Amino acid sequence: MKETYSYDELYRFTSNLFQKIGCSENDANTIAEVLLAAELRGIPSHGLMRVSDYISMFEKGRINTKPNIQIIYETPTTITVDADSCFGIIAAKFTMKKVIEKAHNTYSAWGTVINSTHYGIAGYYAIMATTHDMIGMSGTNANPLVAPTWSISRMLGTNPLAVAVPAKSYPPFVADFATTPIARGKLALLEQQGKSIEWGFVQDKEGLPSNNPAILKDGGAIVPLGSDYEHGSHKGYCMAAIIDIFSSVLGGANFGPFVPPQVGYIKPSEIQVGKGLGHFFGAIRIDAFRPKEDFLRSMDEWIETFKQAKPDKFHTEVLIPGEPEYRKERYHIQHGISLQKEVYCELTKIAEKYAIDFS
Amino acid sequence: MKETYSYDELYRFTSNLFQKIGCSENDANTIAEVLLAAELRGIPSHGLMRVSDYISMFEKGRINTKPNIQIIYETPTTITVDADSCFGIIAAKFTMKKVIEKAHNTYSAWGTVINSTHYGIAGYYAIMATTHDMIGMSGTNANPLVAPTWSISRMLGTNPLAVAVPAKSYPPFVADFATTPIARGKLALLEQQGKSIEWGFVQDKEGLPSNNPAILKDGGAIVPLGSDYEHGSHKGYCMAAIIDIFSSVLGGANFGPFVPPQVGYIKPSEIQVGKGLGHFFGAIRIDAFRPKEDFLRSMDEWIETFKQAKPDKFHTEVLIPGEPEYRKERYHIQHGISLQKEVYCELTKIAEKYAIDFS
Repeated sequence: MKETYSYDELYRFTSNLFQKIGCSENDANTIAEVLLAAELRGIPSHGLMRVSDYISMFEKGRINTKPNIQIIYETPTTITVDADSCFGIIAAKFTMKKVIEKAHNTYSAWGTVINSTHYGIAGYYAIMATTHDMIGMSGTNANPLVAPTWSISRMLGTNPLAVAVPAKSYPPFVADFATTPIARGKLALLEQQGKSIEWGFVQDKEGLPSNNPAILKDGGAIVPLGSDYEHGSHKGYCMAAIIDIFSSVLGGANFGPFVPPQVGYIKPSEIQVGKGLGHFFGAIRIDAFRPKEDFLRSMDEWIETFKQAKPDKFHTEVLIPGEPEYRKERYHIQHGISLQKEVYCELTKIAEKYAIDFS
Repeated sequence: MKETYSYDELYRFTSNLFQKIGCSENDANTIAEVLLAAELRGIPSHGLMRVSDYISMFEKGRINTKPNIQIIYETPTTITVDADSCFGIIAAKFTMKKVIEKAHNTYSAWGTVINSTHYGIAGYYAIMATTHDMIGMSGTNANPLVAPTWSISRMLGTNPLAVAVPAKSYPPFVADFATTPIARGKLALLEQQGKSIEWGFVQDKEGLPSNNPAILKDGGAIVPLGSDYEHGSHKGYCMAAIIDIFSSVLGGANFGPFVPPQVGYIKPSEIQVGKGLGHFFGAIRIDAFRPKEDFLRSMDEWIETFKQAKPDKFHTEVLIPGEPEYRKERYHIQHGISLQKEVYCELTKIAEKYAIDFS
């Protein structure tokens, strides 16, 4: 295992692997690009760590590497796309491109994808719009791990929302966040390390607060953003529910507890209320409400104003959403990407199995 | 003071009062309708409690009761409206109506309002879309009381978001929530009662957690939804920032710390980066992604599924967003609306001053 890998070598490896299992070169490049965007932005939970899950999903016959991705419903400002059970990343990029094309003509547009699978980082698709002088939006539902406020049933995913807004002299504002206080990956890490978890992240099977990071294995659940009702967890529940509805009810994907798990070793629910997993995408031209230059000047002012917020005594600056990820991206492009040992081991095994070069 | 008031008598009183200060009958009726929608839905903080602030804003010359509300920018799917410093409710309803009209033709549409003031409950405008078989969205910025994560500066309002989705056999799904764990009104109430507040709602002037509900008077701030960084307050900060940008940068209203206060006794900041306070509105036809009947059936299934979530042992049911407010509305229509004593006293004084009948 090297200390760091260059973007190019990881890109080549990932693209080669996905071509080997049957994806077109173009599709395999897209998967490499989106997974590596997560690595660059310092979100390894959505980077190459996902490769083994993606491959296991393929091996279980739950991914179609020769998909017929189709627009199945269309209006002047909206499209519904059937992903044909492909790797979600491919259908997501396809749809966001179409949404941006439509918004060029109509100033704003929306898209939804059904019959899909895990689509990587939500932020990637929102950011796509910013280079077209548009605000980008995206969200997806995910396998159910989260209990609504006052409930013990796992009904919702960590359902992320991403919104990206271009500025003139600064990198775009990029909010890209799960609607829970913690990601599942962090729970798994604490469990591996034998540590307990602070209050306010998970509950046990009776709905009582828990400190056990492995509680999901014993009927527990992640709580929504806000942690408990008193601190507004019903608002986190609302957010996750909105994202679930936009991802599923709009076009006809599975919702809530019926969203298929995105790992090979857990079988999907026998009950299906729609097709696969769902996403949504939106784009709005920044000159849809006033001249472009006015918007950009104002967005620069917004960023400058918030950068002038006084930090508390434990911090040296206040961050704009997307700023830490942008800095990590610059760093990783210059210094390379380091892999966690577990991820390296998984990739090595997969490389061997599929006879791909990886060192 | 009566134990309860009928909707009609409170409506008449409110409409008469706003006509007396110069609003047209139509505008005064709109104000009465939106303030009373909040009373009916059990959100008195946005109901008649606001009348004295609205009147004080008028008395300070900060409200124009004979506004020339104009669409100042328009594309096939978007409009920007200048509210001409009217009561925000009037410009907001005007804009949402136009957005719904546009969405009838183009399947989805957006609107933003600049040069506005407090607009009441966000949910009112989102719900308007549901009777046209559309999803409705709305948000507004508000005077700055909230510090971004890691900051001691008050940069953001409690910036609410509302999303309403129609179903077939059930009342609409209505999420309508501030992006903070607590509303300012609740802090004021605890302060009046001489009580302290739990951890996780406010911070002191150094950014340290505080139990003092009066801390805003001593340089403190409300924290974003999530309470602290560990529990995801940067996600609440992201939400509030998105709503601020959509309310201000889109069309050219003031953002963040420059949003004018909505009470007569606090002067607006001398620095203005835009015009007044801002809102945004969105509408999407439910047949924009698949046939209407399919959408409605699926939304019914969504609601039925979430109603089947098991409650924890402290509760008897799990609630759908909007369900408690809907029940309160049914109750108040049947049994009348009761007023808090302070609100009754304020209204009595105002009624006397403007020679309006109120008993």
